[in-house]
Amino acid sequence: MERINNVIKNISGIDQAIVKNTQVRLDNLTKPLGSLGRLEELAKQICGISGKANPLLTNKVIFTLAADHGVTDEGVSAYPKEVTAQMVSNFIAGGAGINVLAKHVGARVVVVDIGVAAELKPGPMLRVRKIGYGTKNMAKGPAMSRGEAIKAIQGGIDLFEEEFKRGIDIVGTGEMGIGNTTAASAITASFCDKPVEEITGKGAGLDEPGLKNKIEVIKKSLLVNKPDPADAIDVLSKVGGFEIAGLTGIILAAASHKIPVVIDGFISGAAALVAFKIEPKVKDYMIAAHKSQERGHKIILEHIGLRPLLDLDLRLGEGTGGALGIGLADAAIKILTQMATFKSANVSEKNI
Amino acid sequence: MERINNVIKNISGIDQAIVKNTQVRLDNLTKPLGSLGRLEELAKQICGISGKANPLLTNKVIFTLAADHGVTDEGVSAYPKEVTAQMVSNFIAGGAGINVLAKHVGARVVVVDIGVAAELKPGPMLRVRKIGYGTKNMAKGPAMSRGEAIKAIQGGIDLFEEEFKRGIDIVGTGEMGIGNTTAASAITASFCDKPVEEITGKGAGLDEPGLKNKIEVIKKSLLVNKPDPADAIDVLSKVGGFEIAGLTGIILAAASHKIPVVIDGFISGAAALVAFKIEPKVKDYMIAAHKSQERGHKIILEHIGLRPLLDLDLRLGEGTGGALGIGLADAAIKILTQMATFKSANVSEKNI
Repeated sequence: MERINNVIKNISGIDQAIVKNTQVRLDNLTKPLGSLGRLEELAKQICGISGKANPLLTNKVIFTLAADHGVTDEGVSAYPKEVTAQMVSNFIAGGAGINVLAKHVGARVVVVDIGVAAELKPGPMLRVRKIGYGTKNMAKGPAMSRGEAIKAIQGGIDLFEEEFKRGIDIVGTGEMGIGNTTAASAITASFCDKPVEEITGKGAGLDEPGLKNKIEVIKKSLLVNKPDPADAIDVLSKVGGFEIAGLTGIILAAASHKIPVVIDGFISGAAALVAFKIEPKVKDYMIAAHKSQERGHKIILEHIGLRPLLDLDLRLGEGTGGALGIGLADAAIKILTQMATFKSANVSEKNI
Repeated sequence: MERINNVIKNISGIDQAIVKNTQVRLDNLTKPLGSLGRLEELAKQICGISGKANPLLTNKVIFTLAADHGVTDEGVSAYPKEVTAQMVSNFIAGGAGINVLAKHVGARVVVVDIGVAAELKPGPMLRVRKIGYGTKNMAKGPAMSRGEAIKAIQGGIDLFEEEFKRGIDIVGTGEMGIGNTTAASAITASFCDKPVEEITGKGAGLDEPGLKNKIEVIKKSLLVNKPDPADAIDVLSKVGGFEIAGLTGIILAAASHKIPVVIDGFISGAAALVAFKIEPKVKDYMIAAHKSQERGHKIILEHIGLRPLLDLDLRLGEGTGGALGIGLADAAIKILTQMATFKSANVSEKNI
């Protein structure tokens, strides 16, 4: 926990003086005031986060953390549990959605086994940082111990720190884990004071009876474990997942290094919610890439106070929406740094 | 008009068999069914438009048409009229928003003077296809003659055909013209049966009295000209603009060549509306890039029946939102053509 506390200590507010100066610069570019809307907001936020007037977004990194969930024993997912490990192989081979979209925006993908229930071989394309072979079935008891949750957060911090040495200017969160919308829903229910029915969606593709069962399983998990919303790590350990905990660590570590974090969908949102509950200041470092079709995601975003950039009915996860968000962040910084000013281009300014 | 009629004759429905096959292929990719939401819709639409199972989006072209508006005499814009020509110079020099965002998505920008009220020199970066030195003041009479409107549409068709020889796989619409939100509002009011107050926005940055005046000027223009909504070219000539007419031609020509057209904001939307009124089949070839902050844009999109991809509070025009839309179209086609299938990646399929 000391490691985590040290990271939290290093999270400060973003640089408001630079935000202000960036606004002045944006207003001098050859366009009507504010006419690039949220791209301008994004440019200001990234400048404020980095503390730099002209941040470079050269190194774009998406962390895709994979783990299994014991709660799949309760039939909460439309896909068999084996798919988690199979998809990790797909990430390594470059055939998944995240590979395609990360390449599209010029980001590198760091694939991590943080708790897959299979023996995976580490290699140049895969870090193996297993906390366990999947979590326990949270419908019967805590998904993991408090010690495991802390270890998983620290694992995320370590992953970020290692990768930071190679260069990170902006980071995206991603995940893979059959059953993890169930964990994300339970986390959201714990913190956001909304009925489980309003939070829970069909995940990767449940039918109506499947959804009903999923809701019952989440209710049971909350009843059995009684997670304490005043203690974020209690919630995370009792009804969370290893990949969610790892992403929480990555988000906290990114903020401590003044790196903007692009949050993907619902599961990443649950990790962001845990990070926010641990240290609310982390919010200013977050960019919500999109609003997922999973209904609980909107509740998370509103709870933290984030406005998503995109609304494309995505619900794949892996970091795919985050990749598109990174592309927009890139566009925003290019606007700031590459456009001509009224003066340099000899364009007349507003006259009324 | 014969030229235009020939183009219209070549606009057919999109290929529904290919749309269906594309759906089957998307469903075989390693992701839950439909989980890439609107990217999947976009991939299907582009396949259907092109008639190709694997369309390439190598040549991305944004047409940015510039023209002046006589109605600026009525004080309808926050910027002086000279800015139109100055911004054309900025486009040529590469310092405008559209240059930055087009480069970001790998598109080339074709800058066209179709009616700027200044002598501009053609060059490798600028086509000069002037229909006139700005339109006439529509508050006092028709903005242009019917002949000029037809000539401007044909000008757009010619521009598309020329550029098509160099290669176009997807096209974006863009424009620049001080005063052109006034023309776009008048066009929208003519076709969409909504009060001028609901359609008219602050354009590049009017204050409240300026907006009030703009509304009065639009009302007067409609009263003086009585554009006939059953005759799209009547509306276009009386309260339109040269750049809007040129874009109408580009949109029709693109559809006739089975090329997807990404519509930018409010002014481009007005051109799309005119094209739609001339030939409703053109709708299926349109991709609405974003919802502009100019309030009339939403009315246009709903009238045609288009759902915008992005909602980023943009209101710059030039084709900037279109550029971002082209980036998403590119992502969509990469998803379709680069992702692994369940079979090729040995990933198990849905079991319930």
